[in-house]
Amino acid sequence: MKISSERLKKYEGMKRDFSEEEYINLQPIQRGGVLTEEARRALIEFGDGYSVCDWCPPKTARLDMIDDPPIHQFYADLAEFLGMDLARIVTRCREAKFIAFKMLGKAGDYAIIDSTAHYSSYISAELADLRVKEVPNTGAPEYRIDPELYASKIEEVKKETGRLPAALLLTHVDYLYGNLNDAKAVGKIAEEYKVPFILNCAYSAGIMPIDGKEVGADVITSSGHKSWAACAPTGILALRNSLGEKVLAKPKIEGDLTKRKFVSKELGLLGCTVAGAPLVTLMASFPEVVRRVERWGEELEKIRFLVKEMERIEGVRQIGMRPKMHTLTHLETDPFFKASETHKRKGYFLYDELRARKIVGIQPGLTKHFKLNTYGLTWDQVKYVKDAFLEIASKYGMKVN
Amino acid sequence: MKISSERLKKYEGMKRDFSEEEYINLQPIQRGGVLTEEARRALIEFGDGYSVCDWCPPKTARLDMIDDPPIHQFYADLAEFLGMDLARIVTRCREAKFIAFKMLGKAGDYAIIDSTAHYSSYISAELADLRVKEVPNTGAPEYRIDPELYASKIEEVKKETGRLPAALLLTHVDYLYGNLNDAKAVGKIAEEYKVPFILNCAYSAGIMPIDGKEVGADVITSSGHKSWAACAPTGILALRNSLGEKVLAKPKIEGDLTKRKFVSKELGLLGCTVAGAPLVTLMASFPEVVRRVERWGEELEKIRFLVKEMERIEGVRQIGMRPKMHTLTHLETDPFFKASETHKRKGYFLYDELRARKIVGIQPGLTKHFKLNTYGLTWDQVKYVKDAFLEIASKYGMKVN
Repeated sequence: MKISSERLKKYEGMKRDFSEEEYINLQPIQRGGVLTEEARRALIEFGDGYSVCDWCPPKTARLDMIDDPPIHQFYADLAEFLGMDLARIVTRCREAKFIAFKMLGKAGDYAIIDSTAHYSSYISAELADLRVKEVPNTGAPEYRIDPELYASKIEEVKKETGRLPAALLLTHVDYLYGNLNDAKAVGKIAEEYKVPFILNCAYSAGIMPIDGKEVGADVITSSGHKSWAACAPTGILALRNSLGEKVLAKPKIEGDLTKRKFVSKELGLLGCTVAGAPLVTLMASFPEVVRRVERWGEELEKIRFLVKEMERIEGVRQIGMRPKMHTLTHLETDPFFKASETHKRKGYFLYDELRARKIVGIQPGLTKHFKLNTYGLTWDQVKYVKDAFLEIASKYGMKVN
Repeated sequence: MKISSERLKKYEGMKRDFSEEEYINLQPIQRGGVLTEEARRALIEFGDGYSVCDWCPPKTARLDMIDDPPIHQFYADLAEFLGMDLARIVTRCREAKFIAFKMLGKAGDYAIIDSTAHYSSYISAELADLRVKEVPNTGAPEYRIDPELYASKIEEVKKETGRLPAALLLTHVDYLYGNLNDAKAVGKIAEEYKVPFILNCAYSAGIMPIDGKEVGADVITSSGHKSWAACAPTGILALRNSLGEKVLAKPKIEGDLTKRKFVSKELGLLGCTVAGAPLVTLMASFPEVVRRVERWGEELEKIRFLVKEMERIEGVRQIGMRPKMHTLTHLETDPFFKASETHKRKGYFLYDELRARKIVGIQPGLTKHFKLNTYGLTWDQVKYVKDAFLEIASKYGMKVN
């Protein structure tokens, strides 16, 4: 059907409302995905649809076999960087979880997941026809996951079904509180019971050091656009060799008339995955990612500083585990809520005040509690953010100690 | 693990071996995915990981609800452009097929697919736990699909299983011969039997006009990086309203302890899909795509001209249906194979000769038969390609009529 040129105008010259250069962006899920300069250059070079496929080897015709650009080598380097044996780039972290669940489980099996897991962990289990059993958390204010409870959940599943669960999934760092969970303890339980252990590193791998071997992970999933300075959509699926055959199983289907078979492909991946800009930005940013995880200690110092300063505002409290072991942070901010009640812009006053100071990324309208992330900000920027919040607090008569 | 800076060097300043500006690229799957200038600009503007999510509405928190950039509006325009009711952007055309198969079928059901389907049609059926029954083609030299055979295959499935197949899939234009199949005839059969009809438009929608309603498609799948001047990975899933509830069903899973539910998400999509560069390039190129499908007639003239000229070389023959109804073209080129037998570079001589003339995209090493695609080339470029082939033919003593 024809679409009028009038209606097409809105797609011309689309602009982002603010730029990372001009504003300080505290958006909790965006900090680790800001592109490096190298990634920006690669975007232009490899933007065209199938630009990485120029040298696809005809016999295998598979993305991970391409040497130019060095995709094949990248998969190996990436696996090693994560302390794993095999790596694949998939379209999203949730797809990596879906593939792991689907290939490791049978319809009706259980997956045991922590109760601070992201929604995508639940629904990727459902799409793989699995059921879930949740490991509880300690509730307010820490929301801590006790790793030992994975063992009792395995027992529960055994008792209920007579079988082991298909997999254990632990969210390494959760999206709500930025808690760093004890992967090694869950890894031990997984090993003891011989249940595959999926560690979801969407918020950790790519910004902080991870050694999959050391924590006993059988599968690591991660998100390129969340934590590896890559374009969306990119997911990482890294595996132990022992699971390679199962998770990366070849298709078995055969054409009933043509007898066509597709044995060079990988079923769960549906063949080739992210052949384009997101993959190339992931590769171009990789050298910086390898370097930046070494600076994680300083990132923690910055967020702990900001939390300490924010808590000088009476009634503001960081929730989740203390001290912060990750830059994604959840704050209870009751005094801001009180200020919003009499403001004509209601909860949006905080957004307005921050925006006027060239700070964005706190969800517009929220004042009772909100999340922020300082990852990759300079000390000067962190101090500027601190000053802005304290200034706003004073302006609205909050008590600052 | 640490990766040495020596090993990281290969990711610095990655370059494509040739550029679309300098070379004429005949690569059969790449022509429709070359970015527009508008898309290149959008890439830079929205390259960062989650850059389109700045204005994600907190309540639904779903990609297709975002108004800035106009994603919500784009989904509606896209559906209308395809003559469909609903559209979603997914990560790949194969994922669109998988979602349709998974949500429309039950484990063990049949999908009926044409025997010229791409491998991804087969394996997306397998990942959805379906079996396939193939509709035969007429074999050499036409490889035509007789649409009436879909009816007899449905009868076969009914007889064998007592049930209807989960879906019919027709490859609108196939990847091997560039045959344009008769969608309307299959649409009629689908309607008669009340079986959902999936039309795979990976090679057609985005470069030629399609009206899903007119051909009776219940589902249209397509590929942004193949045919819509977008970055990989992008797939399109367009639906009739009647299938919306089923294909875009909401997750039913619930946390057993937390009672968390995720009813604003779409299960088959695993929630949000292509939040980034590929989506934004698809949108930025959309105005040009809407315009370019109107110029399809001229694209056909160009490929028919080239085929006619190539067939002046004795022994060269276009295979697949005639006249060409699509720019993707398969040629039998026996005289080039004969020339290769005595050449020290064997089959690579043709690649060398073309490359020396700044032409790329014919699979290196192939001479017996090869595929090419002229989509989007100017008349001058098409004539230049014609001259190059005829010149090489003469150089190697082939007979040119």
